[in-house]
Amino acid sequence: MNDEFKEPMPEKLTKKSENMPRWYTDVIRMAKLADYAPVKGCMVIMPYGFSLWENLKENLDRKIKETGHKNAYFPLLIPESFLRKEAEHVEGFAPEVAWVTQGGHDQLEERLAIRPTSEAMICHMYSKWIRSWRDLPVLINQWANILRWEMVTRLFLRTTEFLWQEGHTAHATYEESEEEVLRMLFMYRDFAEEYLAMPVMVGRKSESERFAGALHTYAIEALMSDGKALQAGTSHNLGQHFAKAFDIKFLDKDEKEKYVWQTSWGVSTRLIGGIVMMHGDDAGLILPPTIAPVQVVIVPIWDDRTKDRVGTAVNELCESLTKLCRVEADLRDEYRPGWKFNEHELRGVPVRIEIGPKDLDKGQVVLVRRDTKEKMFVPRGEVEDKISKVLGDIQRDLYERAVDFRIKHTYKVKSVEEMNEMLERERGIFDSHWCEDAACEAKVKQETKTTIRCIPFDDEQSSGPCLVCKKPGVRAYFARAY
Amino acid sequence: MNDEFKEPMPEKLTKKSENMPRWYTDVIRMAKLADYAPVKGCMVIMPYGFSLWENLKENLDRKIKETGHKNAYFPLLIPESFLRKEAEHVEGFAPEVAWVTQGGHDQLEERLAIRPTSEAMICHMYSKWIRSWRDLPVLINQWANILRWEMVTRLFLRTTEFLWQEGHTAHATYEESEEEVLRMLFMYRDFAEEYLAMPVMVGRKSESERFAGALHTYAIEALMSDGKALQAGTSHNLGQHFAKAFDIKFLDKDEKEKYVWQTSWGVSTRLIGGIVMMHGDDAGLILPPTIAPVQVVIVPIWDDRTKDRVGTAVNELCESLTKLCRVEADLRDEYRPGWKFNEHELRGVPVRIEIGPKDLDKGQVVLVRRDTKEKMFVPRGEVEDKISKVLGDIQRDLYERAVDFRIKHTYKVKSVEEMNEMLERERGIFDSHWCEDAACEAKVKQETKTTIRCIPFDDEQSSGPCLVCKKPGVRAYFARAY
Repeated sequence: MNDEFKEPMPEKLTKKSENMPRWYTDVIRMAKLADYAPVKGCMVIMPYGFSLWENLKENLDRKIKETGHKNAYFPLLIPESFLRKEAEHVEGFAPEVAWVTQGGHDQLEERLAIRPTSEAMICHMYSKWIRSWRDLPVLINQWANILRWEMVTRLFLRTTEFLWQEGHTAHATYEESEEEVLRMLFMYRDFAEEYLAMPVMVGRKSESERFAGALHTYAIEALMSDGKALQAGTSHNLGQHFAKAFDIKFLDKDEKEKYVWQTSWGVSTRLIGGIVMMHGDDAGLILPPTIAPVQVVIVPIWDDRTKDRVGTAVNELCESLTKLCRVEADLRDEYRPGWKFNEHELRGVPVRIEIGPKDLDKGQVVLVRRDTKEKMFVPRGEVEDKISKVLGDIQRDLYERAVDFRIKHTYKVKSVEEMNEMLERERGIFDSHWCEDAACEAKVKQETKTTIRCIPFDDEQSSGPCLVCKKPGVRAYFARAY
Repeated sequence: MNDEFKEPMPEKLTKKSENMPRWYTDVIRMAKLADYAPVKGCMVIMPYGFSLWENLKENLDRKIKETGHKNAYFPLLIPESFLRKEAEHVEGFAPEVAWVTQGGHDQLEERLAIRPTSEAMICHMYSKWIRSWRDLPVLINQWANILRWEMVTRLFLRTTEFLWQEGHTAHATYEESEEEVLRMLFMYRDFAEEYLAMPVMVGRKSESERFAGALHTYAIEALMSDGKALQAGTSHNLGQHFAKAFDIKFLDKDEKEKYVWQTSWGVSTRLIGGIVMMHGDDAGLILPPTIAPVQVVIVPIWDDRTKDRVGTAVNELCESLTKLCRVEADLRDEYRPGWKFNEHELRGVPVRIEIGPKDLDKGQVVLVRRDTKEKMFVPRGEVEDKISKVLGDIQRDLYERAVDFRIKHTYKVKSVEEMNEMLERERGIFDSHWCEDAACEAKVKQETKTTIRCIPFDDEQSSGPCLVCKKPGVRAYFARAY
């Protein structure tokens, strides 16, 4: 039983500015994005949170298909012997695996892992499907649930079970696989920036943060508003490691038998945690309009005498806006307008429209932006034109605000001491250099609790002395991370 | 390890008319809808099959949302103690449960079931969420993977793991819950008939076929082309059984505390098996246009001299049709037209368009219907207008053909002997009467291997003497079933 499950619903939202971890779980539960489940480390994604995930998924799925991939579905259960075929892979994942040992009333001869990731199962199938260069590339994606037996969990950010997509591709050459890995990495960057208003850094991971079994790993990393980094997506070049372990060979045009080159890449429901932390404020969530379940809510300001008149106007506007955006009218009688304002702010609805009898007299509505709380008096005849513009403005401003925040919280440092001095005042990204020696990386981690989030691609003036040993090094971004 | 996994791909499709069970697995594997997975009873849904599922899901999901339901996601793992709360429920499902007993390196204190259905988990959450009549109705649906440890499995029809949607609702009164159960039953009927071209019978299940823990169960039942019935969807009135077991109470308007009334309803990837069996023929699949991954395929008839000219025309037509339907041009050089025709027939693509140099000279294309193999010579300028009509015709004709088949294979019988006589010649639906005594039902099953598929709703002249004991009974449809 999950102890958190018994935690009562908070009565009042903790301020983000005062206690971000507390605010984070409060706002997720109070806004009904998710609730604790009774199974250790698991959550229930509630309808409002799931609608957010559906909007995110729909857009990402389209981008995955536009880049030539097709969806498929592979089994949940993976025989232990498959997982053991790639030595580094099993070592990395075995501590996190939930094992099925009984089916019905029988003890199983071989334990079955609930997939902690699907390389082992998918590679097994690829070894059966791939015979010739004509079968390549294989470009498959899967939307699935994943289980990792985590010790410390947090809603959306790290849960025992989570939802994700995992792309798995096979290619004839290293060059093609590397092209694919980078294509999907930059697709993730564009997706995060355009749809989630989430600016990200892109780059390579150090050896120590590489996916278990991969040749190398790339990631997108976002800076949360508490100055901690969040790994928001990864793209792995698996090289031929799995091809050799699972015997995935093809007859090439030159009549020679060769191992394929593979990639895998994924993002998960963790992205929702990132959206919550990056954009929210003391009053609650602020959702990017592109993926908000409700983009506009209309709240009537009425009493018994004005109810008919105001109600008619609210319904008429709601009807008209339905063609333009995801809109809802909050006609509940049992709550007062002020209570509703708070609730829709808590839920992060991007735009609120208020209509009262005085507004009707003036032929206007009141339009309030969730992000800036700016109030606009808009003539009724102009609302339809205005609404798309305001939603677009909010989407852009959320992104730009996050970019500004990142710029202000990126610090160039030349040494561990400098980083620690800075850390006493502020958290953020530490832009420095590293000699690519694991010992120096470990020393930084030990002394500052930061890790290398990524090694960026930019090449100009990118080399410099390592922040530990002062030998020549590559540019590297360090941060404390979720 | 799954023995079927090692079965080689058949080289030639078995004829449906000669051996339907063999044809069924052959066509699914050769058309790449699915493949056997290496885990017992599991399958891999391949891209072509998954695309079919996505089209089906997208349409069904819209209908579920139009009837006021919202999607959510509940955990995969259910503590054993939850499953045990409703006595009949655990008795029904325990023999089919896969149990997780180890997490990471630790033995768990309590076994966790991989959901065989989610009532136990969802009821647990509902007991936490529902307090007042204001919280009702709760109308939630979930798309999820399900695991049932089955002994005998068949691709799509019965697999250890399958995908489904499960609706779970809670209401203040029995009347409301019954209204919901029937609303969703008839929604399933409309969906099957409109989208899958699959006529279904609707009705109540007998006690013996009721969902474990339900008050009563309704179902849609389809007649496959071998005369066996397929249960294609179910809708259960759970009564207050689960509400009492999980303590789901609400304070009603009259200030009294009451248990909620619940429903659950679901359809699964089994529907794909139904589509395959109902519509396919000796040459392969026949997919209903509404959900076919590819609705139209264009095949060039070319040689080296005519390649440019034909290729240009094919691409131009493909481009133009993209706005109207899901179209693909098969421009592969390594295969001859005849080979491609066979392949696209096998895959059940509803319409094939052929374009060769002679067609270009005549300003026409050749259009071939998959279902009837009818060939039409269509002036190039009329293809765009014609295509939607032909796709609509195929959808309607598939449905009507299936209705005709069902009418021809429904036999009124008055006794078990009559049914057995008929069964020596033909399989189908036996339209008879039953006294609602389980002993008579068991006798029919033992002597004919048929079961009551459903007790229809129609009331006119619906009573008659039981086919066993001759006491007055309700009308009932019997059939052998998948």
